[in-house]
Amino acid sequence: MKDKIVVALGGNALGKTPEEQLKLVKDTAKPIVDLIQHGHQVVLAHGNGPQVGMINLAMDLASKTPDATPEMPFPECGAMSQGYIGYHLQNAIREELLSRSIDKHVATVVTQVIVDKDDSAFQNPTKPIGAFYTEEESKKLIAEKKYVMVEDAGRGYRRVVPSPLPIDVAEKEIVKTLVDNDHIVITVGGGGIPVVVEGNQLIGVPAVIDKDFASAKIAEILDADYLIILTAVEKVAINFGKENEKWLEKLTLDEAEQYIQEGHFAPGSMLPKVRAAMMFAGSKKGRKALITSLEKAEDGIEGRTGTLIVNE
Amino acid sequence: MKDKIVVALGGNALGKTPEEQLKLVKDTAKPIVDLIQHGHQVVLAHGNGPQVGMINLAMDLASKTPDATPEMPFPECGAMSQGYIGYHLQNAIREELLSRSIDKHVATVVTQVIVDKDDSAFQNPTKPIGAFYTEEESKKLIAEKKYVMVEDAGRGYRRVVPSPLPIDVAEKEIVKTLVDNDHIVITVGGGGIPVVVEGNQLIGVPAVIDKDFASAKIAEILDADYLIILTAVEKVAINFGKENEKWLEKLTLDEAEQYIQEGHFAPGSMLPKVRAAMMFAGSKKGRKALITSLEKAEDGIEGRTGTLIVNE
Repeated sequence: MKDKIVVALGGNALGKTPEEQLKLVKDTAKPIVDLIQHGHQVVLAHGNGPQVGMINLAMDLASKTPDATPEMPFPECGAMSQGYIGYHLQNAIREELLSRSIDKHVATVVTQVIVDKDDSAFQNPTKPIGAFYTEEESKKLIAEKKYVMVEDAGRGYRRVVPSPLPIDVAEKEIVKTLVDNDHIVITVGGGGIPVVVEGNQLIGVPAVIDKDFASAKIAEILDADYLIILTAVEKVAINFGKENEKWLEKLTLDEAEQYIQEGHFAPGSMLPKVRAAMMFAGSKKGRKALITSLEKAEDGIEGRTGTLIVNE
Repeated sequence: MKDKIVVALGGNALGKTPEEQLKLVKDTAKPIVDLIQHGHQVVLAHGNGPQVGMINLAMDLASKTPDATPEMPFPECGAMSQGYIGYHLQNAIREELLSRSIDKHVATVVTQVIVDKDDSAFQNPTKPIGAFYTEEESKKLIAEKKYVMVEDAGRGYRRVVPSPLPIDVAEKEIVKTLVDNDHIVITVGGGGIPVVVEGNQLIGVPAVIDKDFASAKIAEILDADYLIILTAVEKVAINFGKENEKWLEKLTLDEAEQYIQEGHFAPGSMLPKVRAAMMFAGSKKGRKALITSLEKAEDGIEGRTGTLIVNE
């Protein structure tokens, strides 16, 4: 047995329609199965931005037609997106395993991620979701549904939801059992269905958990060796796009923190990835986080590329 | 360890809206957790008729609005329904377990069920799904999308899809591992996402697999002791609704077949349940299928009520 690796895949890498997704998951499956073929244990997490956006928008639109399907809360849309993405992803991985005669099994676990109801993010919702509304419609939604609405770059008004930090994974024992039995698991899709604890209950909340943070959390729970955060570039850079741009090979937690303080990483883009990588690497000595592209994942694990964040 | 039991729950028992479902799963969880508390290993399967119908309709409607979300194939809608229903169901069971201090874990596996592409059902689609259309729209769908459309009791035209028999469960090794490790699994939701085998690939097909047949199949694969098919009544009857109505306690396969031939069970209602029960009981000596109501499941397993179909 080599390393236990949690791979965090971006939702944007999965396309905007079912046809696109069905094609793109095949490209995704190859580098993932490369890791498996080299003896690594892989757990796959993924984003769902475009997909849950599409489902939420469709449910919103359909609820306003004369046939009026029921309004669908946001956490339920997230649960749907886990089924939708998981189905395609597990299928593509299954096919790639079979075509290489690797006798392993893969499945998606519908996964809830627990957040703290006192997380300060709930006071400051920032993630836009769903349809665009007119000012008038927006005022109505604020009054009737207590939505928080923001004006979005002249395109109209959109609902915003908070992005709290993950504190636990409700289905962690299920995921552990599957990983311990050498199965390939797709979990915390879209950062997980966001829930808060109320006594013995888990209550779904309209929120978006960053999928890189959720991946760091499940990696920590599973005692993984590596967290790989996939992105569009092979390495993280400082002075990105400038003359003195420099691609980074290895960063200690202190160096990463310093670069963050110097403002090198864009919020909503590279910053949360670096933060999630630091969160995992910082959780225990020896844990490593790698930020690289899907195609370079295998090379990265073998130390030939990517940006490694280490706890030294 | 007592019995390994697959419980097949009806989709109608889960309501028509997310609010209804969230309430109804709590009622469902209690008798399920009763079985668990008495030492049985439980695997839960469920229907998705109203839920996948709602999702499919919403996707159809939204794709025709000016904002036009992508058209969503039927198997993908099924995958979404597994996430949607599984999320609520696993949560309700988790809560019931916790409130009884039972240290067990539950999760939903996104599950594909394999059907035979040469199944004769593909020549004769019978299951209506999605929206109602005018005759003109219907003709267009037949021409453009090769849908099979039927006139539905004066309410307009609807698409019909085939209902092939399940031959295998793609994620069976995952489900087996979880059951062997004493976890509670929700699987083959809505009869499973219907797929056919093409080389190393599984291809989603627009079809509805009867959830009782899919439950019988996973029960067979898991070498379960019991299949419990839940329905609205406590027992199966012959001469149902007539003066000489008789509630049945126990049926051999031969007796069940005879009653079927005599036309005692309504197609689309009790008939497929009896057939699914016979399929499981007939698959190996000693396997038993019980048809009863949710509330009576525990009593039924203890031999006090329900209709038992046995292989003697």
